[in-house]
Amino acid sequence: MNDEATPTYIDIIDQMTLGLRFLNDTFGIGARPLVAWHIDPFGHSREQASLFAQMGFDGFFFGRLDYQDKEKRQKEKNMEGVWRGSANLNPPSADLFTGVLPNGYNPPDGFCWDQLCADEPIVDDKNSREYNKEKFVSLFLETAKKQSKYYKTNHIIMTMGSDFQYENANVWFKNMDKLIKHVNEKQKDGSKVNVFYSTPSCYLQDLNKAKLTWSVKYDDFFPYADSAHSFWTGYFTSRPALKRYVRRSSALLQVCNQLEVLAGTQANKGPYGRAESTVLRQAMAVAQHHDAVTGTEKQHVANDYAWQLSRGWLACETVIKNALYNLSGNTDKLSICPLLNISLCSVTESEKQFRVMLYNPLGREIAWNVRVPVQGRAYTVANHAGKPLDSQVMPQFFLGLYHHGKSHKPSVNELVFQASAPPLGFSTYTVTSQKGNVARPSPPQRVQHQEVIVIQNEHLQLTFNGTTGLLSSMKNLDSGLFLPVVQNFYWYQGSKGNAENIQTSGAYIFRPNVSTPLPISPKAQLDVVKGRLVEEVRQTFSPWCQQVVRLYQGSRHAEFEWHVGSIPIVDHLGREIITRFDTPLRTKGLFLTDANGREMLTRRRNFRPTWKLNNSEPVAGNYYPITSTLAMKDEKAQVTLVTDRSQGGSSMKDGSLELMIHRRLLFDDFRGVGEALNETGANGQGLTIRGRHLLFLAPPDSSARLSRLAGELQLSEPQLVFGTLHKKSRHPYKDGEFSGLRVALPASVHVLSLSRWDAHTLLLRLELQFEKHDDRNLSRTVTINIARMFSTLDVESFKEMTLGANLRLKDLHRLSWDTVERENEHRSKAMQEPTDPSDMMVTLQPMQIRTFLVRTKAL
Amino acid sequence: MNDEATPTYIDIIDQMTLGLRFLNDTFGIGARPLVAWHIDPFGHSREQASLFAQMGFDGFFFGRLDYQDKEKRQKEKNMEGVWRGSANLNPPSADLFTGVLPNGYNPPDGFCWDQLCADEPIVDDKNSREYNKEKFVSLFLETAKKQSKYYKTNHIIMTMGSDFQYENANVWFKNMDKLIKHVNEKQKDGSKVNVFYSTPSCYLQDLNKAKLTWSVKYDDFFPYADSAHSFWTGYFTSRPALKRYVRRSSALLQVCNQLEVLAGTQANKGPYGRAESTVLRQAMAVAQHHDAVTGTEKQHVANDYAWQLSRGWLACETVIKNALYNLSGNTDKLSICPLLNISLCSVTESEKQFRVMLYNPLGREIAWNVRVPVQGRAYTVANHAGKPLDSQVMPQFFLGLYHHGKSHKPSVNELVFQASAPPLGFSTYTVTSQKGNVARPSPPQRVQHQEVIVIQNEHLQLTFNGTTGLLSSMKNLDSGLFLPVVQNFYWYQGSKGNAENIQTSGAYIFRPNVSTPLPISPKAQLDVVKGRLVEEVRQTFSPWCQQVVRLYQGSRHAEFEWHVGSIPIVDHLGREIITRFDTPLRTKGLFLTDANGREMLTRRRNFRPTWKLNNSEPVAGNYYPITSTLAMKDEKAQVTLVTDRSQGGSSMKDGSLELMIHRRLLFDDFRGVGEALNETGANGQGLTIRGRHLLFLAPPDSSARLSRLAGELQLSEPQLVFGTLHKKSRHPYKDGEFSGLRVALPASVHVLSLSRWDAHTLLLRLELQFEKHDDRNLSRTVTINIARMFSTLDVESFKEMTLGANLRLKDLHRLSWDTVERENEHRSKAMQEPTDPSDMMVTLQPMQIRTFLVRTKAL
Repeated sequence: MNDEATPTYIDIIDQMTLGLRFLNDTFGIGARPLVAWHIDPFGHSREQASLFAQMGFDGFFFGRLDYQDKEKRQKEKNMEGVWRGSANLNPPSADLFTGVLPNGYNPPDGFCWDQLCADEPIVDDKNSREYNKEKFVSLFLETAKKQSKYYKTNHIIMTMGSDFQYENANVWFKNMDKLIKHVNEKQKDGSKVNVFYSTPSCYLQDLNKAKLTWSVKYDDFFPYADSAHSFWTGYFTSRPALKRYVRRSSALLQVCNQLEVLAGTQANKGPYGRAESTVLRQAMAVAQHHDAVTGTEKQHVANDYAWQLSRGWLACETVIKNALYNLSGNTDKLSICPLLNISLCSVTESEKQFRVMLYNPLGREIAWNVRVPVQGRAYTVANHAGKPLDSQVMPQFFLGLYHHGKSHKPSVNELVFQASAPPLGFSTYTVTSQKGNVARPSPPQRVQHQEVIVIQNEHLQLTFNGTTGLLSSMKNLDSGLFLPVVQNFYWYQGSKGNAENIQTSGAYIFRPNVSTPLPISPKAQLDVVKGRLVEEVRQTFSPWCQQVVRLYQGSRHAEFEWHVGSIPIVDHLGREIITRFDTPLRTKGLFLTDANGREMLTRRRNFRPTWKLNNSEPVAGNYYPITSTLAMKDEKAQVTLVTDRSQGGSSMKDGSLELMIHRRLLFDDFRGVGEALNETGANGQGLTIRGRHLLFLAPPDSSARLSRLAGELQLSEPQLVFGTLHKKSRHPYKDGEFSGLRVALPASVHVLSLSRWDAHTLLLRLELQFEKHDDRNLSRTVTINIARMFSTLDVESFKEMTLGANLRLKDLHRLSWDTVERENEHRSKAMQEPTDPSDMMVTLQPMQIRTFLVRTKAL
Repeated sequence: MNDEATPTYIDIIDQMTLGLRFLNDTFGIGARPLVAWHIDPFGHSREQASLFAQMGFDGFFFGRLDYQDKEKRQKEKNMEGVWRGSANLNPPSADLFTGVLPNGYNPPDGFCWDQLCADEPIVDDKNSREYNKEKFVSLFLETAKKQSKYYKTNHIIMTMGSDFQYENANVWFKNMDKLIKHVNEKQKDGSKVNVFYSTPSCYLQDLNKAKLTWSVKYDDFFPYADSAHSFWTGYFTSRPALKRYVRRSSALLQVCNQLEVLAGTQANKGPYGRAESTVLRQAMAVAQHHDAVTGTEKQHVANDYAWQLSRGWLACETVIKNALYNLSGNTDKLSICPLLNISLCSVTESEKQFRVMLYNPLGREIAWNVRVPVQGRAYTVANHAGKPLDSQVMPQFFLGLYHHGKSHKPSVNELVFQASAPPLGFSTYTVTSQKGNVARPSPPQRVQHQEVIVIQNEHLQLTFNGTTGLLSSMKNLDSGLFLPVVQNFYWYQGSKGNAENIQTSGAYIFRPNVSTPLPISPKAQLDVVKGRLVEEVRQTFSPWCQQVVRLYQGSRHAEFEWHVGSIPIVDHLGREIITRFDTPLRTKGLFLTDANGREMLTRRRNFRPTWKLNNSEPVAGNYYPITSTLAMKDEKAQVTLVTDRSQGGSSMKDGSLELMIHRRLLFDDFRGVGEALNETGANGQGLTIRGRHLLFLAPPDSSARLSRLAGELQLSEPQLVFGTLHKKSRHPYKDGEFSGLRVALPASVHVLSLSRWDAHTLLLRLELQFEKHDDRNLSRTVTINIARMFSTLDVESFKEMTLGANLRLKDLHRLSWDTVERENEHRSKAMQEPTDPSDMMVTLQPMQIRTFLVRTKAL
């Protein structure tokens, strides 16, 4: 039961695939689940509905939706209907029949019997002093009658269980047996209520048989509020370090999966030992849970999730090194430097010469700015063919902010060079410290009295106000678009509960005590570094809030790398930190947010598409989950922000975008975690968070191309592998570059999955990662020949599967539902395999994902 | 798992019979339990061991014994051995192999896995952060090694469970499976420990196979102390009202059982409706539980036990009335007046003429002083043949002490007459109010200035000190024995915990705060009533403590009927009330107490037979359970007290006997009940308790005869049934007297059980209720012809059974154990049926009980 706000679609699909395969393996195909059941996640994403539909589920039930929404739906008997999960895919392929459960995941009041329930047991022995059968029967009939008013058919569902229930199942069943027996006995006296044990899919069957016409839902169920001051929008950001670790692990898992395919079983046993991707796959699957990546778990549980991921990293490190050894013949001692995010990498910091291998999991060639900590002042960099590359060494900025342990003296410099890597492949670079008396890299220039500071590259120009130190404008040099943009960091004070309501801000809930955030500082001190490869403005807002704004050579976005923490709490105030970009764009209350990193939804401030919003929390009620992208636009310009992890975000006024990047709170928020969200590191201080945002300014019609491709690269970062050279490996070698593809795929095609299924089969998912109206070129239909796609694999045949890979697509027959819109005529054809298997040509429509089990000659 | 201190042997046997029969009926004879398992009762009675042995158990395990005893047994490897349950029966018929469990009923420290346990689960997955298998294996091996030092064989038992455990059994089994697996794996490395799931009987088998010579235990395990200041001797008296209700219900159940046999199925359906004895039998069985009759349950649970008994009373009232209607032809409207104990009986209080039927469950004819509340001043009483009897009307003494409700105006007078009833039968008396101007009964004489007050009958004379109002001496007129005896009521202040130890006095624990009890009053006000049938001294010690000392015509004991309560707590002190009899007898620290109403044990103050006692609680550590009898003696005289319910008692100094009769305490004593023992009635006041003690003074060699027969009558009171006459029943009728026996049994023979087993079979238990050395005549062997015993039943055949009636005696083959005493030669013969079934002659030895299933021509 994954969270729906913070995971990417990739991770959702991966974990569902793992689970559905387990069910098939364990119980057989006959036990394929027909109903999706997300009774606890804190709001529901449209993309989740789309994915469930494509996995072949007939229906979906959930428990949590906005209390105002629920009230209206109850009144209008609109608790059940069809949810259109995609604005791109042809109905009904992403349509999902969806029902709101009557009591969340709880039993009706008074009918809870378990270790952790206090309801009295049903006593039907007339000789007992505690005889209470009649009372229970009456209460049940009343309850059923009341509930039936909210639902359209003659059938209603009651969820008999809850959190931590059925630890002692006998207590439940003993009482339900009695309840069922005695309620049904009333039929003799004319009662029309018939109660029995059932399942969600049986219930769904009966809804379907009712042959009603159902409403259609187009938007999503975010944000979720359970009452007027309790918006579950804090968890969009809670535990930002864990959220980033999960995101980074996702990319690693794709690399690990791909290399198990490309190197075959040599990846699993080789000079680096035995290991399999399974460890990370399982850890990642668990991490998608709605109390994992959400950040709503207790601290020790969060520690365990991280520990599980770290085990996965160890396993995948071995897989990757074995695979690269095998594919490249590189006999260096390889390592992956998992702490590179805090500028730690023993190879680059200690070796005078080292190798950098760059594995690219995308289907197209990529450029990537390698950035590693070094002790030296200048380096030469050469590619696999010995051709030299430009490089730049500069002093580190965030130096000294991390708790490295006493033994490690941090490297003062960073080396940057622009590497490239072929599709589904790797390239190799050799880095050599320059000998002799090399000049120190020029130190950053402290900005003192300038009025304006400018950095720029071929495509963009940024200006900063020399007095405030803040970003002041951005110009797209290709289109000539110019926009004043002021960026600064602010904090909301997390509510401790107030006279109006006791609700606090906590792991789940975001509740600022006032609606206007305070700047961390009105000014930033600036240092500027300019080199051939990158120009950086380094901003210091406070000892615990710094940022580098940089433009890499050739980059079409500005990168904002921020460093926040430890958030001070000496004044006993909880703080929720945002970064905010203010522009004069006239956005008319509208902004755009992604759903799980895929399709964009338009949001409107203080508005919900399906009910009249009475918003009692002006800020929290406008926050939405940003899995990857937050944007706003007017007719001429679009500003897009791409994140490196899931965050909460909003547009609190026209022309403004904000993302919440860190939270430190001092009170529990009464939703079950039982702890304040007050993360501290090994040094006892609040956690420090380092992250990056990519900022795009472009005309609306060319924005998607830029941000989607950059976003893809954020989700599927190339993996750096470092080699310590020894005698035998001192020279470049011929297999320093490799691609798993014969030719690069079109940029619009994302290789969503490429992993080993069994000894002769691989799982392949291809995706057209653009929406219909995103881009004139990249939104076009694409056809791929799977048989000729791979450079080293002989494809014999393939079967197209449902998205979860647990059923052949041709065997899928979903229930059909009449809706108020009646587009259902082409329903029966929608999910068929449209391609002749013999020629292995696969066509992709915008936002379509197609899933194949591909048989090859040995893997 | 009945309590062992407070139930009578009759009730223990009855409830075990019910349970063992349930096991036979449910699982078959193959599931007959071989081991008795009393892991929680608060001390262990020798009679219980004897009864278990006679029920055919091979062994017995328990958990609670004095902490000093346990320490010594551990040191001496004497945790297991043979317990000789009887000083009268030939070994090994009452010998029971007995083991003390290592940890009470708990698992070893650190090995508890359940809903209510906090021990960490065993994690044997090396990939888990919580891997702890090795730690558990080491701890287990250490634990096993330590425990093995206390036990003689190579086998040890570990009790893996506790109170409220296995609610969620999977947690236990999952962890034990792992523990067993991993501990046994250590055998590869030379470990000698083999652990497996076992049962008490398997364990016992292995102890038996060890062929060791075992110690012999002759005394019992009372009192139980779990630490220096925590003697579990309070519960001997706790909830005296419930204890009396249980005792009185026991007699009613015997009557009910017998009438179902004697009247057959006519008892179960008749003019009074349908009913069976089962209701009371089950309620009584439950009431023997070690947190029921003990008084150590919460108040609402005590209420439920009482409620269950009251349902049993209703059922048995119907059975008895149907039976008497059927056997006698009496068409009166019959009722039983269950509140006669508080002088409430609507028939006798409202009718001018009424009938009294007296059913006697004993095998001999009895005399009984009928005492009923009446409104009239004088009555004539006639037996079934119309022969008039003497009677006496006198003012009630305890009048106005009860909370009767507003509508009831209590009767001011009591009518007394001496009835008799034939063995296993009834007699009928007609009582008629004398018409016309009858004089009021003479009021009690207030004692003002006399020096000495004397009451007497043919056998006894009591003198009272006119100044103090206290009993001053007693004389046995038959033997000429004279003894100064001073009786008074005292109170111990229940400890609230003190600096030495936090232990409080509570439901389980007796801990007075000082060793010398305070008199409730040094003086009593006296009123004297003398009539032809009874002479009474009525003592008022305080508004909440009164007593009548009476001598009935023909009685060989003095009756002390006391009335105590509501105990005041305005000073916030807990009070524990005793009655004490002080004499100049030189008793050398010795006194005698019964075990479950059967054999007597000799006690010695501040002494235990099997270890050197370090008594840190001078009073509580000398308290013993008195189920029926407390006595002391010197060469010439014995003073014996017979109680009407279980109480704690002692002899705190030579020549003195004390019984604790009521307790009201204000603190929980930390043994699980979680409430203070502060019983309050419907009026919100502390409970009032009315009870009676019989006091005997006789030469030692004739004391047992008197006290045992009177005690038998206390345990098996005749049942009074009252008839409201109507037109048709205004005259005496011929079947006013009935006996189920052809001839009375000898007085030494107690009809322990006579109940219906099935349509053609009755359960019969006969007992010789005297010990070997009790009495020259009554201790003699007796032979009974079962075939000719009953007046109305045609006996066809019988089978002799074990005491629990679940196995034919001839099929019983108990394990044989060598002891340090080696009397085991005649072992194999001891339990055989010694009687030729064809002649149906049954011989009884002192203290022998024999159990038969008797087949008759229809019941």
